[in-house]
Amino acid sequence: MGKTIGVIIDYLTDDYRRMIDEAAAKHGYATRYFPDSRSAVGSADDCEILFGHCSQKVIASAQNLKWFCCCWAGIDRFCRDELYRQPDCRLSNSSGAYGVTIAEHLVMVSLMLMRRQMEYTELIRSGGWDTLPGNIRSLHGCRVTVLGTGDIGTEFARRARSFGPARITGVRRSAKPGDAAFDEMRTTAELDAILPETELLVMALPNTPDTVNILSRERMALLPEGALVVNVGRGTAVDQDALIDALNSGHLGGAALDVVVPEPLPADHPLRGAKNLLLTPHVAGNMTLPYTQQRTIDMFLEDLDNYVSGRPLAHEVDRRKGY
Amino acid sequence: MGKTIGVIIDYLTDDYRRMIDEAAAKHGYATRYFPDSRSAVGSADDCEILFGHCSQKVIASAQNLKWFCCCWAGIDRFCRDELYRQPDCRLSNSSGAYGVTIAEHLVMVSLMLMRRQMEYTELIRSGGWDTLPGNIRSLHGCRVTVLGTGDIGTEFARRARSFGPARITGVRRSAKPGDAAFDEMRTTAELDAILPETELLVMALPNTPDTVNILSRERMALLPEGALVVNVGRGTAVDQDALIDALNSGHLGGAALDVVVPEPLPADHPLRGAKNLLLTPHVAGNMTLPYTQQRTIDMFLEDLDNYVSGRPLAHEVDRRKGY
Repeated sequence: MGKTIGVIIDYLTDDYRRMIDEAAAKHGYATRYFPDSRSAVGSADDCEILFGHCSQKVIASAQNLKWFCCCWAGIDRFCRDELYRQPDCRLSNSSGAYGVTIAEHLVMVSLMLMRRQMEYTELIRSGGWDTLPGNIRSLHGCRVTVLGTGDIGTEFARRARSFGPARITGVRRSAKPGDAAFDEMRTTAELDAILPETELLVMALPNTPDTVNILSRERMALLPEGALVVNVGRGTAVDQDALIDALNSGHLGGAALDVVVPEPLPADHPLRGAKNLLLTPHVAGNMTLPYTQQRTIDMFLEDLDNYVSGRPLAHEVDRRKGY
Repeated sequence: MGKTIGVIIDYLTDDYRRMIDEAAAKHGYATRYFPDSRSAVGSADDCEILFGHCSQKVIASAQNLKWFCCCWAGIDRFCRDELYRQPDCRLSNSSGAYGVTIAEHLVMVSLMLMRRQMEYTELIRSGGWDTLPGNIRSLHGCRVTVLGTGDIGTEFARRARSFGPARITGVRRSAKPGDAAFDEMRTTAELDAILPETELLVMALPNTPDTVNILSRERMALLPEGALVVNVGRGTAVDQDALIDALNSGHLGGAALDVVVPEPLPADHPLRGAKNLLLTPHVAGNMTLPYTQQRTIDMFLEDLDNYVSGRPLAHEVDRRKGY
């Protein structure tokens, strides 16, 4: 049995297929394209490598899998050791493909909250044409905190910078220098001191034990009256009950969640009725953007070269850390 | 009768009042604050200067008016010579105060169109949680044309630049160099050649005879299939009937209008039913933003110095040109 790369991506085009086939052939691999995860479960034993949005079942059934390259950025579901038949199976993700599109989502929803666009949508919908009483707000002069300074948080900060914010503070787990787009870098240990000075809190964190409930009820109370909260990444990072209370009481001026618990969010879930809450159905990293698709392919092919040459993978995930 | 400055602004604060009073006193002027235009009609004969959002009636009734500083940017209603009792009455506007807030509006609505946010709002509203079939789009790699490269168009281009567009083309009436945020500057005479290469057309033009219907039915047809159109400035710049047709036929992928004809837009106006049309009720330059308010005051006080010293006004409007 020759060496095979199994591919499961629903945005496969002739061009992408040709690129993957050529790279595989160069390294002596055959390719096998599955239309979806269901068709691959139990029939991917020939695959030494799997690439794409594979389900956990596919991974758990692949007897000879040595490397799974996930085309998502969030891979918390794939970090359990017991998932893998080969204990040393490697895992990489596509963190770096999503910064561009998720940063655009973050700027869009931040401005929608500041400019009260949800209220204006309702006003127009009801046939009106008026200026709402009260103020709008601006990224210009705003004190922004970005919690999670990876690809997504950094791409957001680079764009937010052009709007003239008062300050962009990056917050990460360890004290390392950040991108020049951040005015200052702090650590999560200092978060409680940073929140009272934050008018817009942007959260772009992976789902790890450290990030679960990181925006707790107590921390939400530290934000100043009228602060705005935006979350991409994973819904587990926010205490949703506390968020509903903080929005409905007016302590928070608004929030935008692209990720929630559970997903899909039931039609009768209390989050849907919270005041000034902008919900989007986990589409910030929408894979239909050609740029994102191309990046995931490029990143896989780059790491295929690394894998074959015995070099470290550029996008390798440490399963114990979860990112 | 001493020299008097009449002020009509609905965002007057104690601070602003103090700033105006101090500057007026320095130059030997009294100040008079009217709660609104209605109360000033026929009773502003003592005012040599008027500042604020005065109605045409106030201007027409002010016998001794020598300078009207308008706190709006769009002053097309104030360009008729017959409006003024004193034929040499000067007119200035507050162009320059609105770039920051209108640029934020422009980025927001451009991203909303590209990311299909209106459809997602409806999907969430109906209790759903799905990814829409079909693609989203991105400012990254987008070919952007900005028609009107004054304060607003330039501030937009500066922000749009940070998203990595393929190209930002500025189009203005005369061949002058533009801000560094533009990749290239062209003239309106070249517009027909530029439109077929435009994926996002942003219009920020004053209302002058030259700009009425500048986006005609014929020009709309020159835009490529799926192009997006965003208009602030004045509604007269767009052929609205043609826009409705182009949206409903799918030739245009979407449009966002903050200005329309007429305003307020009637509840049963056909624009309200057009496909993928994002309407906002002339709030892009929303005056409730403190930054904008402060800028209009600063600009008036700067020009008060100029006026008293006999220097040209920094924000003077040529009534014949209309800007």
